[in-house]
Amino acid sequence: MTTSGLDILALGNAIVDVLARADERFLADQSLAKGSMQLIDEARSATLYGAMGPGTVVSGGSAANTAVGAAALGAKVGFVGKVRNDELGRMFTHDLNAVGVRFDTAAAADGPSTASCLILVTPDGERTMNTYLGACQTLGPDDVDEATVKSARIVYLEGYLWDPPAAKDAFRKAARIAHEAGNRVALTLSDAFCVGRYRAEFRELLRDGSIDILFANIHELKSLYETEDDEAAIAGLKAERVLGVVTRSADGAIVVRDGAVTAVPAHPVEQVVDTTGAGDLFAAGFLAGLARDLDDASCARLGCLAAAEVIGHLGARPQADLAALARRAGLIA
Amino acid sequence: MTTSGLDILALGNAIVDVLARADERFLADQSLAKGSMQLIDEARSATLYGAMGPGTVVSGGSAANTAVGAAALGAKVGFVGKVRNDELGRMFTHDLNAVGVRFDTAAAADGPSTASCLILVTPDGERTMNTYLGACQTLGPDDVDEATVKSARIVYLEGYLWDPPAAKDAFRKAARIAHEAGNRVALTLSDAFCVGRYRAEFRELLRDGSIDILFANIHELKSLYETEDDEAAIAGLKAERVLGVVTRSADGAIVVRDGAVTAVPAHPVEQVVDTTGAGDLFAAGFLAGLARDLDDASCARLGCLAAAEVIGHLGARPQADLAALARRAGLIA
Repeated sequence: MTTSGLDILALGNAIVDVLARADERFLADQSLAKGSMQLIDEARSATLYGAMGPGTVVSGGSAANTAVGAAALGAKVGFVGKVRNDELGRMFTHDLNAVGVRFDTAAAADGPSTASCLILVTPDGERTMNTYLGACQTLGPDDVDEATVKSARIVYLEGYLWDPPAAKDAFRKAARIAHEAGNRVALTLSDAFCVGRYRAEFRELLRDGSIDILFANIHELKSLYETEDDEAAIAGLKAERVLGVVTRSADGAIVVRDGAVTAVPAHPVEQVVDTTGAGDLFAAGFLAGLARDLDDASCARLGCLAAAEVIGHLGARPQADLAALARRAGLIA
Repeated sequence: MTTSGLDILALGNAIVDVLARADERFLADQSLAKGSMQLIDEARSATLYGAMGPGTVVSGGSAANTAVGAAALGAKVGFVGKVRNDELGRMFTHDLNAVGVRFDTAAAADGPSTASCLILVTPDGERTMNTYLGACQTLGPDDVDEATVKSARIVYLEGYLWDPPAAKDAFRKAARIAHEAGNRVALTLSDAFCVGRYRAEFRELLRDGSIDILFANIHELKSLYETEDDEAAIAGLKAERVLGVVTRSADGAIVVRDGAVTAVPAHPVEQVVDTTGAGDLFAAGFLAGLARDLDDASCARLGCLAAAEVIGHLGARPQADLAALARRAGLIA
């Protein structure tokens, strides 16, 4: 990777999604908690794939989706993540390169295959994810290049990196280098269940100054602060020394800065087809706004616009020209 | 494959589609004739993939798409086609099995990889296809099981089978067995360029009684009869001893039986996202109607409904529950 400046360097699990329609009964039969992301092994992945309906295969991965969305909105973006040199790995790599995201983490030559996520989409548009981490399990600190991290104004990290064994060390290394270089570190909490698994560590990251910008949806935030109450969760966030960005589905998003709250409404959506990637694309829009030095409300609006596009179709990667949509909405010039 | 009765046995190229958005300029730069299907070799496929945008991967293949749509509408359907035992081959097989299409053509253990089609979708929703035939090139008469063909009320064959070297022999064998068993043979002309390549042979198939039902869009029909005039093309079809079914995009479809024409309007579509598979799904609906012994107009309406669903999203396989849509439209009970 060249060290010419990046707006955003995203670090995350490199995953290819396989999406299929399913009804509530299928989720119940397969003992799947609707709306969750659960980790599965290769054998379970094969069994579940055999039981599920016809698939649509689209590159995914939370931080990778964010990288793609931000690049589509004009930001200079790099991605760090681990694939294997197999068919899915080549697909994942192609789909980053094709939108101009710099991606040159060395692919694993052996070991587990590229990660895949079996995603069941129910008629209400909700997605239930089943991730086989595969090659992601081999991501480690050696995959983080110091010069690249230094060159990025914001390093963006996904909470899911706590799942593979050594990825959190890559995360910590990237955060340390970024701060030493005077750059900012952003974290997304990823998933309420993920917060449940690593709550203490995530709260410590906020407390010890490792994180400058926090992305969460309201469910994740409530899980973080172990409360059932929206306002209590937001109060918890106000007490942290971070820029907090919270999505609330159809109720739009709020930005918490220095104890003050800025709210923006959701972008109109004709039909919610598949919510996969909604949070990732919100973060993409927000980060692309930060890269353009927009104000908080404008960043959040750009996030809502990108999220609205991605929930209108199957898959977590944009299908429309996000920059054209943003220009039409008057959000960017 | 069991020999319990099938409504439809479809024979075609077994292909996985990779769809990406592209603009007119990209087509021009790559010297692609918009709306066409062109055959490419593996090297060209790799180059074009490298140049094109992020992909959405969905199983395809014209007759296979038709098989899936007809099965979704309740018909008992089998498919004959050749994949290799690789990732894409397993995906293709899964996606047929998942909707109940019987598919047990032996996968190739070596040789070329499973076929893929790189599909560029322009902003107007038109698709331009680039097919690497791969393992399809090894489909031959030995892959056609006599008992299975005998068990099927209709054998459905795609004109694209003239492209691989031995598939037309599989086609002829299936047609002969079907007729000896008193079953019907349907052909789709596939593509105006395909008709250009094999016009004389297709006209001979119609003339010599090999075909009982012909599916075509109006462009293919005009190419078949080498005319620029819609009415002249339809007059040519009237003179054949076949049931003729002709799609006319936004103008709906007509059915030509014993010299008489029945016309039905197109099904309303909110937005044309991607026309890939429109003709295939029209044939699916029509054949599913025949399997239910519906009248010509009802069969054509079912075809228009299935086509309308598939052009509303990326990819040639249905994403909605076609049977539920058909029930809601009062076309099936």
